[in-house]
Amino acid sequence: MKTIVIVGSGMMGSALAFPARENGHRVRLVGTVLDRDIIETARRTNRHPKFDRDFPSGVEFYQFEELKQALEGASFVICGVSSFGVDWFGDAVLPQIPNEVPILSVTKGLQDLPDGTLLCYPDLWQAKLDKLGKSNELNAIGGPCTSYELVAHDQSLVAFCGRNLQTLAMMKAAMTTSYYHIMVTQDVIGIESAVALKNGYALGIALTIGENIRRSGNENEIHYNSQAAVFLQATREMDKLVAMQGGTANSFYTGIGDLYVTVYGGRTRKVGILLGEGLSIDEALERLQGVTLESLVVAGRVARALKKRAARGELNLADFPLLMHVDEIITDRKPVNIPWESFAK
Amino acid sequence: MKTIVIVGSGMMGSALAFPARENGHRVRLVGTVLDRDIIETARRTNRHPKFDRDFPSGVEFYQFEELKQALEGASFVICGVSSFGVDWFGDAVLPQIPNEVPILSVTKGLQDLPDGTLLCYPDLWQAKLDKLGKSNELNAIGGPCTSYELVAHDQSLVAFCGRNLQTLAMMKAAMTTSYYHIMVTQDVIGIESAVALKNGYALGIALTIGENIRRSGNENEIHYNSQAAVFLQATREMDKLVAMQGGTANSFYTGIGDLYVTVYGGRTRKVGILLGEGLSIDEALERLQGVTLESLVVAGRVARALKKRAARGELNLADFPLLMHVDEIITDRKPVNIPWESFAK
Repeated sequence: MKTIVIVGSGMMGSALAFPARENGHRVRLVGTVLDRDIIETARRTNRHPKFDRDFPSGVEFYQFEELKQALEGASFVICGVSSFGVDWFGDAVLPQIPNEVPILSVTKGLQDLPDGTLLCYPDLWQAKLDKLGKSNELNAIGGPCTSYELVAHDQSLVAFCGRNLQTLAMMKAAMTTSYYHIMVTQDVIGIESAVALKNGYALGIALTIGENIRRSGNENEIHYNSQAAVFLQATREMDKLVAMQGGTANSFYTGIGDLYVTVYGGRTRKVGILLGEGLSIDEALERLQGVTLESLVVAGRVARALKKRAARGELNLADFPLLMHVDEIITDRKPVNIPWESFAK
Repeated sequence: MKTIVIVGSGMMGSALAFPARENGHRVRLVGTVLDRDIIETARRTNRHPKFDRDFPSGVEFYQFEELKQALEGASFVICGVSSFGVDWFGDAVLPQIPNEVPILSVTKGLQDLPDGTLLCYPDLWQAKLDKLGKSNELNAIGGPCTSYELVAHDQSLVAFCGRNLQTLAMMKAAMTTSYYHIMVTQDVIGIESAVALKNGYALGIALTIGENIRRSGNENEIHYNSQAAVFLQATREMDKLVAMQGGTANSFYTGIGDLYVTVYGGRTRKVGILLGEGLSIDEALERLQGVTLESLVVAGRVARALKKRAARGELNLADFPLLMHVDEIITDRKPVNIPWESFAK
């Protein structure tokens, strides 16, 4: 039996308690400072307020002040904070994790440097660990898996990535269930890039749904040719970008699976549809107020990085007309005007 | 103004009359021997019986006996027969097409030879042309485009493939509209393989929809993790297969777009859902009687070819667990049992 400590009781962190606990491990779910109510509710009802079924019995719930106790005897720590909590995790949690305990992060995203380098979060945390003189192994989860479907025991396929294949095998053995299937790979930058890149592209595909609603005046007449056309172009651009980041083909495929699930997965889709229907980005965000829009942030960062690299002649922005258009919409506040003919070049 | 002759007035052949005629060309739609009623209806109502809107005015309709007149002055001929009409087209139509007139085929499929070679239809027709001592250029259309959405002017992106870039440019100029966007490529085998290969994979993805319906007892609770997992695996297998056929990455992307639209596009989806719900292939076909199941035929052919190549040691069937399972279901009548863990290997 392992002791698996999950830090961050948002939907994805909490969902991972299901396979972990169902496999008979000790599971400690620790809320962040923003998760106080979730942990209180979970203690009272054994259910996450956003889920429609109970946690498997025996999951232990901790408030953030109790992190130290929660970490006692940990086999590994799962980081389930949102991408807005990445620095916080590095500053408030990493220093407390005992040196020998490996980490598995489900936080998705990329951060761009002034020179156009796109770093994944394990890279950022590695820098923090180096400063702390610590040697925890950093691993990450990527791939097509929405939390509520994982909770529903829908069949899911994800990738665990990290440097050490033995550690990955240990984590895979601990987390694999009849419905949660895990590939392992050492291609950390590839997986993390692929699953972060898909955000802007999912928005791009959703634009076509909104455009069709606007054109037909009918929410039910959903057409797929236009979605498929943008999906095709997204595939082409993502393959280039993953390779550019140094990733493998398998990581690109994982990103494509993630793109597929994200087109249907809620917030990004909703923003894209509203934009396609003719709202400006500001109007769309106003309409959807309160939703976290990590996907828009990531798309903007990737576009900013590509522009810098293009300025140095390292790539041609004309190879990325879809991402550039998504960036125009969300960064420059331009109206939707999908550059169809540029996809046929 | 060009004269564009479409042979085969099924849904896709007929749909191509829309961009062609809207661009001001003379368009002659010629029914096959099975299309007599469609042509009669179209003459009377200017509408295809399966479409919900009229043909653009001025499309001319011909019965098959009038093929010779229809071909007079043709700039190019579009072959719109189903894959079951491939031999018929070669025997009954090819000999009548004047030697200098190029052909553009929208028929999708592959045919396997005893040695496991997978030929595309332009290859088959080339052999017929060689026998006839004719030199018509053979081109083909692939990519994500369903006929009824093309008719609805949904934005669509397809690839025209052929040997001669000048001919492709002529056809592209003739057919491009504000909603029909055309890539051109010389990678005929890649495009034709990619768009044929997607059939079995679309069935595989649809299986998960049926499985979820069976499991949840609820047709509305459609989950996407499992669809995305199979989509991921399909991407991986299709990339390998397209490359094995000698195709390019761009053709693979086109196949992925086609896979996306096919998951939503009707017949293949329906069969997959019924199979996933627990029906045998025979029960599913009984339930859907009358539908043409080109996709099942193609998937069976590809599997048969791969097995022969594997027997010669040219490939490892373990790299294609999804296609092999689809083949088990449709060829060996086995029940659905998606090999999830083999996707995580």
